[in-house]
Amino acid sequence: MKEVGLGLLGFGTVGAGVVRGLQTNTELIGNRVGILPVLKWIADVDLDRDRGVSVPTAILTRDAWSVIKDPAIQVVIELIGGTRVARDLVKGALELGKPVVTANKALLAQYGAEIFALARKRNVDVYFGASVGGGIPVIRALRDGLVGNRIERIRGILNGTCNYILTRMEREQMPFEGALKEAQNGGYAEQDPSLDIDGIDTSHKAVLLASLAYGFHVPLAAVHTEGIRRLSDLDIRCARELGYRIKLLAVIKRVGTEIEVRVHPTLIPLDHMLASVDGVFNAILVQGDLTGETLYYGRGAGQSPTASTVIADVVDALQNLDASSAQRAPAMPNYSGQARVRAMRDVKTRCYLRLSLLDQAGVLARIAALLGEQDISIASVLQKEVHSGEYVPVVMVTHAAEEYRFETALKQIEALDVVGAPTLRIRIED
Amino acid sequence: MKEVGLGLLGFGTVGAGVVRGLQTNTELIGNRVGILPVLKWIADVDLDRDRGVSVPTAILTRDAWSVIKDPAIQVVIELIGGTRVARDLVKGALELGKPVVTANKALLAQYGAEIFALARKRNVDVYFGASVGGGIPVIRALRDGLVGNRIERIRGILNGTCNYILTRMEREQMPFEGALKEAQNGGYAEQDPSLDIDGIDTSHKAVLLASLAYGFHVPLAAVHTEGIRRLSDLDIRCARELGYRIKLLAVIKRVGTEIEVRVHPTLIPLDHMLASVDGVFNAILVQGDLTGETLYYGRGAGQSPTASTVIADVVDALQNLDASSAQRAPAMPNYSGQARVRAMRDVKTRCYLRLSLLDQAGVLARIAALLGEQDISIASVLQKEVHSGEYVPVVMVTHAAEEYRFETALKQIEALDVVGAPTLRIRIED
Repeated sequence: MKEVGLGLLGFGTVGAGVVRGLQTNTELIGNRVGILPVLKWIADVDLDRDRGVSVPTAILTRDAWSVIKDPAIQVVIELIGGTRVARDLVKGALELGKPVVTANKALLAQYGAEIFALARKRNVDVYFGASVGGGIPVIRALRDGLVGNRIERIRGILNGTCNYILTRMEREQMPFEGALKEAQNGGYAEQDPSLDIDGIDTSHKAVLLASLAYGFHVPLAAVHTEGIRRLSDLDIRCARELGYRIKLLAVIKRVGTEIEVRVHPTLIPLDHMLASVDGVFNAILVQGDLTGETLYYGRGAGQSPTASTVIADVVDALQNLDASSAQRAPAMPNYSGQARVRAMRDVKTRCYLRLSLLDQAGVLARIAALLGEQDISIASVLQKEVHSGEYVPVVMVTHAAEEYRFETALKQIEALDVVGAPTLRIRIED
Repeated sequence: MKEVGLGLLGFGTVGAGVVRGLQTNTELIGNRVGILPVLKWIADVDLDRDRGVSVPTAILTRDAWSVIKDPAIQVVIELIGGTRVARDLVKGALELGKPVVTANKALLAQYGAEIFALARKRNVDVYFGASVGGGIPVIRALRDGLVGNRIERIRGILNGTCNYILTRMEREQMPFEGALKEAQNGGYAEQDPSLDIDGIDTSHKAVLLASLAYGFHVPLAAVHTEGIRRLSDLDIRCARELGYRIKLLAVIKRVGTEIEVRVHPTLIPLDHMLASVDGVFNAILVQGDLTGETLYYGRGAGQSPTASTVIADVVDALQNLDASSAQRAPAMPNYSGQARVRAMRDVKTRCYLRLSLLDQAGVLARIAALLGEQDISIASVLQKEVHSGEYVPVVMVTHAAEEYRFETALKQIEALDVVGAPTLRIRIED
């Protein structure tokens, strides 16, 4: 059987998963596609740590560049992470005409434009299926399975850490800090969790999904990004009472010629499919003009699921090498010169507002008046009883209005003497 | 831009959807993949009926063979349905070295072995993404996205008509006949609904999924197939009380070296993802050894969703033509010479039994004894009150046992004088 030589850069958790996955299933893959992937080099700075997978020491090296340059290496797998070393190595491999498989969403969200352009120039492919959705083949679905559709909307739970924390906060009525600590102890969150909980990882993935769906490079800076730090278990309980759950969502939506791309905590109706996605799972709901809504669900991170998608990309690379069909399916089509990301101020949503108000007559009327001046109308109000302090939390659900209206109204509301703390605002997707 | 000529055979509902989809999105597709699909011929026996889509009469013909033979036609789309004419035309196109896109699961389930063999021999591709799951790109997910996984299990709701009927029976507490009539009036069921409600359509799709997952041609005759005709609204209510919903499921499962492939009504726990799939929607749960469980959900039938997947296959064909990469990804890999479908008698499941028993002392004990002789133990019993007749329905949920044990026990039970009617048995998937 034909063989193709692979060089793996980065022998971390996912890297070890790819090695194990290939060890287990190489024969099966060969049977299925008629080509055998053969791992010839593994490069990492740390060659001593036990990864729970056994490899011949002869294929281990600290020199990633020598791996890229070795003529026996036909496909380069980049699983180093970060954007400095990885960027140079990915570009180096592409310059040498070698296809690259990567799970590095941070790299592609920041430097995708130059990387995809270089790949086109060198007539070589970049595969990034594992950058979004872990073990869920959603990038393929969007690139291939839905290629005939104009994409109307994508909504996704794309970060397992945040979803785990929110699920625990809801189930155990835990505060954010406690759920975060638990996630860290369980290995579901990093010691420095900011990339996840501040929504940055989700916005990297949103950039890739949006760029792929709409055919232009969505600048990371154009993505409105909020994390989950400010959410309290009170918000989760109030949302529940109102018939919603709170999820960190990436929302990508066509509005005329503009594209909304935003990442923020979101109230989702309890009976919505995304509301029942719990724990570390991810789910992506894609609406096409022909296919309607389709959902993709599975493990969004973790060693083996992510390795599954890396290996799928490796097989795609093997097949394109074997058929000499580089750039057969453009990794990242670029055709919408005039499309642009909608300014956040123009984005229109319903909102959940948690205000801290003095419990006295006439206060609600003043709030309603300020909202009304901005054409924001109130759909429902929920006032929670409290037993201490003079300020009480009051929750309002509004009808749809533009961001700038909320900004203006909330600034005026915060200046009132009856308001005890900044208002927490969470957008709603119905 | 490069152009590829398409010939469409069959201008029915899905055919018209493909025409409209191409009319709407050809430019977008061209932008995405750099090749334009151009519809050059539409063949159908009926050229007069209004399909709600306008095409130049010059491209309409009654002569499907002339379409296949026209050198301007590079890709043939077969949407005629049935297994007689379609079989000849598909084979004719392949003989001429032209790739075929088809949504014809009946054809491939029955004649797939010869069709895929011919395609290999002629070094040309057959694309059948729209044969399973309508607008859900699940065939692609299985072929490409999960190619690195050993597939442990697939469970799917694959027939929208049955799922619609079962959903209506549950929601409206309707008998089967009423729900079927409603489905027919609403256009969700054919006037002769047997292909759907007897599970045949689902078993065609199960053959394709199982063959693709396990690399051997699963004979249609080896698939145990039961439909939903015998289900009553009483069963649906009893199941609900016991914490289950009833769905027509395709179950495909690796058990050692054998593969279970079966289609039957199934009790699914209420909190399971498949239990919440309602109406005409489809969902497929695929478990891989690396990726774990992934779910694919969307519209499993209908004009535009099915057209979406047909068009995705057309694009795959365009790309392979353009890159001269025929047979780049084998349509249906065939490598598991020794695998075989497990005999139904050896399949082990838990079961729901609805017995019709005389309401007198000692009857349950006699039933339990006969089940016990076959090592079938009872997990729970539900006796419904009735107000007329001497026989009462008694529902039992058992622990897992092999089919042959149930067959033996139920035969003995039916011979008892205290049993008023044959026992209805529904398998359970947990």
